[in-house]
Amino acid sequence: MVYISVLGYGTVGSGVVEVLKQNKDIAARHAGQEIEVKYVLDLRDFPGDPVQEKIVHDFDIILNDPEVEIVVEVLGGVEPAYTFTNQALCAGKSVVTSNKELVAKHGAALMETAKAHRTNFLFEASVGGGIPIIRALYASLTADHITEISGIMNGTTNYILTKMYEEGAQFADVLSQAQAYGYAERDPSADVDGYDACRKIAILTSLTNEQSVNYEDIYTEGIRKISAEDIRYIKQMGRNVRLLACARKNERGMYAMVAPFLLEPDHPLFHVNDVFNAVYIDSDMLGATMFYGKGAGKLPTASAVVSDVIDAVKHRGALINMNLPAQQMRLLDFDSFVCPFFVRVRREDLPEIQKLLPVAQELEPLIENEAAFITEPVSQAAFAAAEAKVPVISRIRIYT
Amino acid sequence: MVYISVLGYGTVGSGVVEVLKQNKDIAARHAGQEIEVKYVLDLRDFPGDPVQEKIVHDFDIILNDPEVEIVVEVLGGVEPAYTFTNQALCAGKSVVTSNKELVAKHGAALMETAKAHRTNFLFEASVGGGIPIIRALYASLTADHITEISGIMNGTTNYILTKMYEEGAQFADVLSQAQAYGYAERDPSADVDGYDACRKIAILTSLTNEQSVNYEDIYTEGIRKISAEDIRYIKQMGRNVRLLACARKNERGMYAMVAPFLLEPDHPLFHVNDVFNAVYIDSDMLGATMFYGKGAGKLPTASAVVSDVIDAVKHRGALINMNLPAQQMRLLDFDSFVCPFFVRVRREDLPEIQKLLPVAQELEPLIENEAAFITEPVSQAAFAAAEAKVPVISRIRIYT
Repeated sequence: MVYISVLGYGTVGSGVVEVLKQNKDIAARHAGQEIEVKYVLDLRDFPGDPVQEKIVHDFDIILNDPEVEIVVEVLGGVEPAYTFTNQALCAGKSVVTSNKELVAKHGAALMETAKAHRTNFLFEASVGGGIPIIRALYASLTADHITEISGIMNGTTNYILTKMYEEGAQFADVLSQAQAYGYAERDPSADVDGYDACRKIAILTSLTNEQSVNYEDIYTEGIRKISAEDIRYIKQMGRNVRLLACARKNERGMYAMVAPFLLEPDHPLFHVNDVFNAVYIDSDMLGATMFYGKGAGKLPTASAVVSDVIDAVKHRGALINMNLPAQQMRLLDFDSFVCPFFVRVRREDLPEIQKLLPVAQELEPLIENEAAFITEPVSQAAFAAAEAKVPVISRIRIYT
Repeated sequence: MVYISVLGYGTVGSGVVEVLKQNKDIAARHAGQEIEVKYVLDLRDFPGDPVQEKIVHDFDIILNDPEVEIVVEVLGGVEPAYTFTNQALCAGKSVVTSNKELVAKHGAALMETAKAHRTNFLFEASVGGGIPIIRALYASLTADHITEISGIMNGTTNYILTKMYEEGAQFADVLSQAQAYGYAERDPSADVDGYDACRKIAILTSLTNEQSVNYEDIYTEGIRKISAEDIRYIKQMGRNVRLLACARKNERGMYAMVAPFLLEPDHPLFHVNDVFNAVYIDSDMLGATMFYGKGAGKLPTASAVVSDVIDAVKHRGALINMNLPAQQMRLLDFDSFVCPFFVRVRREDLPEIQKLLPVAQELEPLIENEAAFITEPVSQAAFAAAEAKVPVISRIRIYT
C-alpha cells in the first residue's frame, strides 16, 4: 500500500480521487500495489462527501506524515503550489502536478530539488491534459534530435475556431456561447490570448533541449483578431486556421511562438477539431509523429495525474531520468522568422503594399472594396515594416 | 559505457547502427552513458563497411561475452530469433526486438524468462514502427480501462488503399506499382491479407489485458477484394476505407478482428494516408486518444529500437513493469459481432436480400444492373446466412 495526498479538491483533484477509486484495480496492477489517498488538502469542507474524513486544512499534516510518499499538487497557480511542492520534495516525497504555471515558472528548480533528494517531480498532466506527450518526449523519443514541436495545446481556442469555421460566426459571439457552456472562462485571456499555450510549449521545448525556454521570451499572439470574414477566405483557400504553439530549430538555434496559423488539409493538425488537442513532432530519425487526445477536462487530466502517481510508485527510490535544464536558452529573434502571410487590405492600398511585400498569389476578393493575397515567405520584420506603412485589414501567418 | 550487440545487419539492424552513430550524443544524454555496438551478428560479411570489424557469425561469442549487456534482435521470423533471445535473457542480458512474429508467438514466455532473470524484454518497434504506442500502453495509459484499440497498423495496405482512392485504380494495379517501388513485398500476403496487422493487434491487446490474445484466434480478412467500383461508392458516401486491426470490449468480453472498414470523416483515423500508421484508443477516463506516425521504414523502426535500448540502460538491474500474460484469453465469437455493412448486389437480387437483411439506406447505383445499400447493424452470422442465400458482388463492414 502506498499513501498519497492530494492538494486541492477542485475539478482535477476530485477527478484524481474518482479515478483512483473507480480504477483502483488497474492502478494497483500497474503500480504493483494499492494506492490510497490519505489526505486531501482544501480550504473548504465537504460535508456529506466521502472525502470529508480525509480533508485537512493544514499542509504540515501532510508534510510531516512519513506515511505519505507522494503528493499530488492540483491547486493551480504559482503560490502556494510552489512552496508546498518544494517542501514536499525536500521531505523526500515525490510530487505529481498538473500545474503548467508552476512547471513553466519553477520547473527547472523543482527538478533540481527533486534530484537532490532522490525523489521524482512529474507533470504529465501539465501539457495536453490526457495526451501522454511528456512521457513520450522523455522516455520514447530519446534516440532523435527533435527539430519541430507544433501543437494545438488549448482546447478553448480550438473549440472557438472550430465553431467559427463551421458556423461562419464572429469571434465575440462564439466566445460568449463558449462561456455560457462553461468551455471558456469568464476572463478568457489565458486561453484566447495564447498565454496557456505559451507555457505549454515552453515546457515541451525545455524537456527536449539542453537549455530551458523561458515562456516570457516566446512571441505570443492570440485569436481575438480572427474574424468571420477571414474564415470566408480561409474556406475559399481550402485551408483551416488553428492556434499553434510552435518550436522550430535550424542550424542557428530555435524559434518559439504562439500564433494562429493557416494549415493545409494534408497536415495532420488540420483535422483536429473542437476541444481536442494534438502535438505534432518532427525529428531526424522518426520523422513526423502526432499525439492526439483530450487536452483538458476533469477525468482526462486526472487520468494523466494518476499515471504519473503510478510511475512514481514504480520508481520508488529511483530517479526517473527527465531533463528540465536550469540554464536558459536564448531563442532566435522572432523578427527573423520567415513565413508566408495571408493578407487583406483595402483595394486602394493594394498597389502600395505590393511594392513592399512579394505576392505569391492574389485571392478572389470576397468582400467589396478589398483585396486579399498570399505573400511569399517573408520575415516578421519585413512584414511589420510594410504594415507600418500600409494599413492591413487582417493578416494571418501560413504554416509551411 | 554500455556494450550492446545487434543480431542481423539487414534494414533495421543497419538502421540501429546508424541511429546510434549519428545520434550518439542524444542517446548518451538520455541513457546517462554512452552506448557502443560491440558485435553485429550476420551470416554475411560486409567488406568495406565500417561495421565489418564488428561482424561475428557465431552467436555464442555474444552470449558468452559478459561485457555485452543488451542484445538487439532484428533478424525477423521466429527462428533462430527465439532461441537467441531466450539464451540472451537466461544469460541476464536485456533483449530489444522489432520482431512482431516473435513477440506475438513467444512474447509471454520470453517476458516470464526475462522477469525470472531480472532483466528486460522490450519490443516497442514490433508494433507501429516508430510510433511509441507500446510504451504509451504500459507506462502512460495505466489509470484507464481500455475499451477499444483500433489501428491502421500496416503501411503497405494503407498506401494501396490511399492510391486506390486517389487514382480510382484497381487493387492489382496499385499492388504491382507498390511492388515496383519497393513499398510491397514480392509475396505481399503478410501485408494485404492482414496477417501482419493481426500479430500487431494481438500484441497490443495482450499488453492491456490480464490474459494474452492468441493471434491465431483473431478473425483476419485482407484488402484483396476491395475494387475500384467499391471505391466509387465509398467516395459517393463521403467515406473512406481502411484496413483496421481492432479490439473492442463489452460486458461479456472482447472481440478482435482485422478487416477493411468504412470510416466517416469525423473519425481521426479517416485522415491517415499513405504509409502512415495510427492507433486509436478509447478508454474510460482519457476518452479518445490517437498516436500517429511512420509505421515502418529503416530509421523510424531503428529509432524505436534505440529508444528501447536507452530504456534498458536506464533500468539496468531493475524490472520495467510490463505485462504480457501467459494465460490465454477466450475471445468472443466473431459471429456475434454486430456492425452495419455496405453491400452491392445484382439489381435482380435486391428484393430477395432485403428480406434477409435490414436496410438502413439505399445508395444511388453507380453501376448498371446493380443495387447498393447500407444495412442496419447486423451480426456476422446473420450477414453470412444472407450471403449464403443471395450472392453479393461485394460487402465491406462499416466502423461505428
